[in-house]
Amino acid sequence: MDSCASLIAEHPHRLPPLHAASSRRRTLAIGLIGPGRVGSVLLSQLRSAQERLARESGLELKLCGVAASRRMWLDCDDPELNAQHDAQTWRPTDLDQFATYVRGDDQRHAMLIDCSASDAVASQYPYWLASGLHVVTPNKLASSGPLSRWQSIRAASSHGGRFRYEATVCAGLPVVQTLRDLLDTGDQLLSVEGMFSGTLAWLCCQYDGTRPFSELVREAHALGYTEPDPRDDLSGMDVARKLVILAREAGWPLSLQDVAVQSLVPPELAELPLEEFMERLDELDAVMSQPLAAAQAVDGVLRHVASLDRDGRAQVGLQALPSPHPFAHTRLTDNIVQFRTLRYSDNPMLVQGPGAGPEVTAAGVFADLLRIAESLEVRA
Amino acid sequence: MDSCASLIAEHPHRLPPLHAASSRRRTLAIGLIGPGRVGSVLLSQLRSAQERLARESGLELKLCGVAASRRMWLDCDDPELNAQHDAQTWRPTDLDQFATYVRGDDQRHAMLIDCSASDAVASQYPYWLASGLHVVTPNKLASSGPLSRWQSIRAASSHGGRFRYEATVCAGLPVVQTLRDLLDTGDQLLSVEGMFSGTLAWLCCQYDGTRPFSELVREAHALGYTEPDPRDDLSGMDVARKLVILAREAGWPLSLQDVAVQSLVPPELAELPLEEFMERLDELDAVMSQPLAAAQAVDGVLRHVASLDRDGRAQVGLQALPSPHPFAHTRLTDNIVQFRTLRYSDNPMLVQGPGAGPEVTAAGVFADLLRIAESLEVRA
Ligand SMILES: NC(=O)c1ccc[n+]([C@@H]2O[C@H](COP(=O)([O-])OP(=O)(O)OC[C@H]3O[C@@H](n4cnc5c(N)ncnc54)[C@H](OP(=O)(O)O)[C@@H]3O)[C@@H](O)[C@H]2O)c1
Ligand SMILES: NC(=O)c1ccc[n+]([C@@H]2O[C@H](COP(=O)([O-])OP(=O)(O)OC[C@H]3O[C@@H](n4cnc5c(N)ncnc54)[C@H](OP(=O)(O)O)[C@@H]3O)[C@@H](O)[C@H]2O)c1
Repeated sequence: MDSCASLIAEHPHRLPPLHAASSRRRTLAIGLIGPGRVGSVLLSQLRSAQERLARESGLELKLCGVAASRRMWLDCDDPELNAQHDAQTWRPTDLDQFATYVRGDDQRHAMLIDCSASDAVASQYPYWLASGLHVVTPNKLASSGPLSRWQSIRAASSHGGRFRYEATVCAGLPVVQTLRDLLDTGDQLLSVEGMFSGTLAWLCCQYDGTRPFSELVREAHALGYTEPDPRDDLSGMDVARKLVILAREAGWPLSLQDVAVQSLVPPELAELPLEEFMERLDELDAVMSQPLAAAQAVDGVLRHVASLDRDGRAQVGLQALPSPHPFAHTRLTDNIVQFRTLRYSDNPMLVQGPGAGPEVTAAGVFADLLRIAESLEVRA
Repeated sequence: MDSCASLIAEHPHRLPPLHAASSRRRTLAIGLIGPGRVGSVLLSQLRSAQERLARESGLELKLCGVAASRRMWLDCDDPELNAQHDAQTWRPTDLDQFATYVRGDDQRHAMLIDCSASDAVASQYPYWLASGLHVVTPNKLASSGPLSRWQSIRAASSHGGRFRYEATVCAGLPVVQTLRDLLDTGDQLLSVEGMFSGTLAWLCCQYDGTRPFSELVREAHALGYTEPDPRDDLSGMDVARKLVILAREAGWPLSLQDVAVQSLVPPELAELPLEEFMERLDELDAVMSQPLAAAQAVDGVLRHVASLDRDGRAQVGLQALPSPHPFAHTRLTDNIVQFRTLRYSDNPMLVQGPGAGPEVTAAGVFADLLRIAESLEVRA
């Protein structure tokens, strides 16, 4: 009572501006691993934003190094930071050296961005995080890989650097953070359903029986919609990885082998050399025509769906959906995800849009970077 | 060159764990203004999460006060913080006193949550923010009110406390933050289109010509889908406010009067007493039947749409949409928003789901609170 009364007595009028108000100037050292399609676009997004971020939010991004699989560049190799990479000195890649250099020795804020698809790089996260480095990545291998490694990463990030991986699921669409927010605010997940492969979405959208499935696969392959080996899409494993990531986010200690994955590749074609597989592609038609007929018999559509239920059961495969279902109306290669929770039970929450491509993937990584930057303490 | 070589020489192996690694314990003092439908649900969401947040993320939420329009309660009035409010001492509401008390005098982190729909409360934000208090709200009046006040709020929050208002647009759906992320990562907005009123979405979905529009309004009113005075929905002004919020987020200094709003209420009914308006409801049918016929003539549907284009032009009103349009397939009272940007140009990004209701609105406010909490410095 006393402290309350005296406090109120002392401040009878308007609150004065805080003494400690500051414009929150922070510097973040960045090392980028994997200057490939996504990584190089991210570098140019960061460069274009650098000046604006410094001006508008006091955030100084300092690119300290870039590492590809065999060679790396550190900014000390070239005093002209913004020069063309080609003109710079490169040295053999050594990720320990790289991380140590980016981290610095002056207690600065530092982040490694992994834009590789390398398991060797993902294996380093626990050490990096434990050493206080922040890690941001679109690489699915850490979040969907061995559970023990995932747990080390979580443990390390709860005390050390932050770890974010929004772009691993549907690239720049707000999916992982949206699920986090639902759970963190005390909602309970009833189910997640989604179409996480633009390629499979496109194939299913096009496949209405007028043309054989194999012909559509050939077309998608020729258009560059599929991976170089279309089986990497058709196997459903990439979709299963994304589902594992969401399941773990929801607290289920799932691994890839826990997901019931229906592959669209007949077992006898799974191990063939690519060329031979492409020649025998029409053997897929038998696999696909029966489920399509079944879907159409009930006026439905055939879709490739990933689903996780409230008991942690995870499935990936073909589903016949009624035609008013939102998954029946997506556009071309769109990804879609639907969260059903206690609060969103009658009508679920839906997020939809392009879920791949270097620009939107890099933007998803960039948004993660900004989220971490927001939380950085001001350090001299 | 030298510093780089020596740094690398000094750290040839694994990075050691950071000395400064900490579990980031933070305390956040909270004052809630407006314990109405949203506010009281938020209080119970916060209470249910309190123990988990402390345990899992080191965040200690300390509810210091609750203020309604006429009376307020401060925790010093009752040592038993979790007791029923009814049993507590109440004193007359004085927002200056309230803010001063929640802020405290020990440089602690403190936040005011405005769950009122009061303009008088919104007018206080600039002072609160300037004094270092964080402000979070579902109240649209600050973000869609006078531009000069909005600018003071922005200025104050860039140096003082943080200001977040995700729940002002589509409640718990990730809309404002999604737009922020697009822009902050350097994307360029081409257009925003949305259906921001669950009531109008429901009316338009149901209205296919089999029943007159007025009958549907009567039904929605009886079901409690509309505001007590349905004109508050039909006028489109609430939707226009949400569009102003998104426009300002995108950098356009728009005000409510800049939005071209098509009201569904004929001018001669706008000023009538409620009862008389309800009696003359069937005068709406003439207004609605012509656009419906026009939409149906081109095999389309009629929808109530808010749109903002790349030049900052803002419109709210009826649109005839082709039936494959995603807005033609929403469910019942669902809200939907579609962002078209340079990176999402062929296919836009879409977010859809329930956009009102105390549970999801409170969750949107709660997520904002957590976003700010993540960024709090550890203070002793
Ligand atoms: N592209 C998309 O639309 C998309 C969407 C979502 C997620 N992702 C994910 O984003 C990541 C990058 O995709 P991307 O399409 O940009 O791949 P990419 O073009 O193949 O680029 C991969 C990059 O990683 C580098 N790299 C590989 N192993 C490395 C190692 N051990 N150490 C350092 N660098 C290494 C490669 O360097 P070298 O050239 O020297 O081998 C290359 O620069 C992948 O994990 C992918 O799954 C991509
Ligand atoms: N309900 C929704 O689904 C929804 C969705 C999105 C956004 N919102 C927004 O959320 C806010 C709250 O909505 P609601 O449905 O919870 O409203 P509500 O049930 O009418 O509650 C409003 C609360 O604000 C208090 N209040 C009014 N003027 C005040 C003042 N000057 N000082 C202190 N307290 C004051 C009221 O106290 P008294 O009871 O003493 O008057 C009441 O506790 C509104 O801004 C609304 O637009 C609501």
